[in-house]
Amino acid sequence: MTEAESNYIPAYDDVVAARERITPYIHRTPVLTSSYFNQLTGAELFFKCENFQKAGVFKVRGACNAVFGLSAEQAGKGVATHSSGNHALSLSYAAGRRGIKASVVMPRTAAEAKKAAVRGYGGEVFECEPSTTARETMLEELVARTGADFVHPYNDHRVIAGQATCALELHEDAGPLDAVVAPIGGGGMISGTCLAMSRVSPDTKIYAAEPTNADDAYRSFKAGKIIEDDAPETVADGLKVSLRPRTWHFVSTCLSDILLASEKEIIDAMHLTWQRMKIIIEPSSSVPLATIINNRELFAGKRVGVILTGGNVDLKKLPWMNTHALT
Amino acid sequence: MTEAESNYIPAYDDVVAARERITPYIHRTPVLTSSYFNQLTGAELFFKCENFQKAGVFKVRGACNAVFGLSAEQAGKGVATHSSGNHALSLSYAAGRRGIKASVVMPRTAAEAKKAAVRGYGGEVFECEPSTTARETMLEELVARTGADFVHPYNDHRVIAGQATCALELHEDAGPLDAVVAPIGGGGMISGTCLAMSRVSPDTKIYAAEPTNADDAYRSFKAGKIIEDDAPETVADGLKVSLRPRTWHFVSTCLSDILLASEKEIIDAMHLTWQRMKIIIEPSSSVPLATIINNRELFAGKRVGVILTGGNVDLKKLPWMNTHALT
Repeated sequence: MTEAESNYIPAYDDVVAARERITPYIHRTPVLTSSYFNQLTGAELFFKCENFQKAGVFKVRGACNAVFGLSAEQAGKGVATHSSGNHALSLSYAAGRRGIKASVVMPRTAAEAKKAAVRGYGGEVFECEPSTTARETMLEELVARTGADFVHPYNDHRVIAGQATCALELHEDAGPLDAVVAPIGGGGMISGTCLAMSRVSPDTKIYAAEPTNADDAYRSFKAGKIIEDDAPETVADGLKVSLRPRTWHFVSTCLSDILLASEKEIIDAMHLTWQRMKIIIEPSSSVPLATIINNRELFAGKRVGVILTGGNVDLKKLPWMNTHALT
Repeated sequence: MTEAESNYIPAYDDVVAARERITPYIHRTPVLTSSYFNQLTGAELFFKCENFQKAGVFKVRGACNAVFGLSAEQAGKGVATHSSGNHALSLSYAAGRRGIKASVVMPRTAAEAKKAAVRGYGGEVFECEPSTTARETMLEELVARTGADFVHPYNDHRVIAGQATCALELHEDAGPLDAVVAPIGGGGMISGTCLAMSRVSPDTKIYAAEPTNADDAYRSFKAGKIIEDDAPETVADGLKVSLRPRTWHFVSTCLSDILLASEKEIIDAMHLTWQRMKIIIEPSSSVPLATIINNRELFAGKRVGVILTGGNVDLKKLPWMNTHALT
């Protein structure tokens, strides 16, 4: 991206273009309902199952939009990012589908399984020391050397426009919604949701759901400016990162509120979702349901969309295996 | 049931009637596909997701057909069965929906979680000593005392006709199939599948999938008569029971073959399904996929329906937690 592009705030037309661009490479994921959870919450819930998405996560939407929007010349130089999580998988998947190179800078301490998963989708892993400086330095060098296009996990207009296609589908499949609740980390999914819904259903309230242990977006929202957290610890490991200008724009102007859930509430909601809906979601995905259970009065009697963002978990290390709090 | 009824072999008309009877009380479960598994097997697979069914298992189909087919007089006396598994849950669910009593004889040693689940659906638990004799004796006494209708888990024409509705839906949603693969324990699901497909798609081959460790149906099929296993041990705990006359009728006349899978193959297929499809299935449900992987040459290039029978697992005790064989 050029400097001018990187400051650009995406508009609804970008979402329409993204949708056309990425449709061949992603799943139209189903919207599921659960009479059990409707009864538990008093609301009518519509779960958008991005855990069934390609690469197991909504982030392929933004990654595909970035990758398939590249000029042929830029595509020839590949794409790059630093990530040890779902964005790394998603960018590798998207690049693989276009047949171009994806370079991913990962800390050498990252789990071998995650490195293997990136390679499995065709990405190339560059190992760095486990610090932010080392990661950014290596990425800069890599971009300078190869001319690869840096695709940020969320502070990127192409990525936000791509994520927005998820809310469009939810709106079409669930019908009119009083509210949508989605998790917030860096704010890519929430920004896309705001961008889409503000056009197709402006009366729908958008709530972000965040772990109390990583409540930097909550504090930012209340303070009216970005507050960054220094290395928060939460089981919802996709939600540790902080807001950036492109996502702060949507968070500060479109959200109704940010709701919080404790670690135990997040794990309980995840366990209950596995048990009752028979679907695998990662901890980050259960934060919205945990906040809906916490705020029954806010949602009871309402039609509420819930975005289940992803399903990538280590099946050998489940969070309830280490807690005595659950029964 | 009267004696004459208990010897009755259900016909296609019974399936049509069952479908009309049970539709309000069950889910029309989705048929999912997986590009990963298509690539792995060389076949085009259509997964019928009965793990998403009410009570988490296909058995509510048969249980609902039995319960909602009772006369008002009989319904007033309730239903009864002995089971420590999915049939207990399913009959309790069905009786609860009709507002009648379900009595379930369970060994006192059964997991408290299972007893709690039966009670959660409104069933009443009667605890007996953990032996077949104790179980049958207590059930006979209970039926004699209350006049409750005994609903056998599979050797019952109403149950078989109910299970058959699953294959009808699969046929409608997946389109023409070259084969259907379903697990076999007592044979209720397989019998229903034979009953439905022999009418709506007589050229579709039906395969039963069974654990090598509990291969009594396989040995029966090869021997041409029912051979009962004495307390087999398999992780696919829904498949330990033996064939009975009503299910032997279908197994001996309609099946193309019975295919086997080892414990490791069953666990691997289950793990891979969780990991790749992000859905929770119980070990019994992964036996068909394990046999398809084992018999690639039989299914490659074919359109194959796979019945995922249920999703009721203890999330704290997963089979890959105790094995070093998986990577």
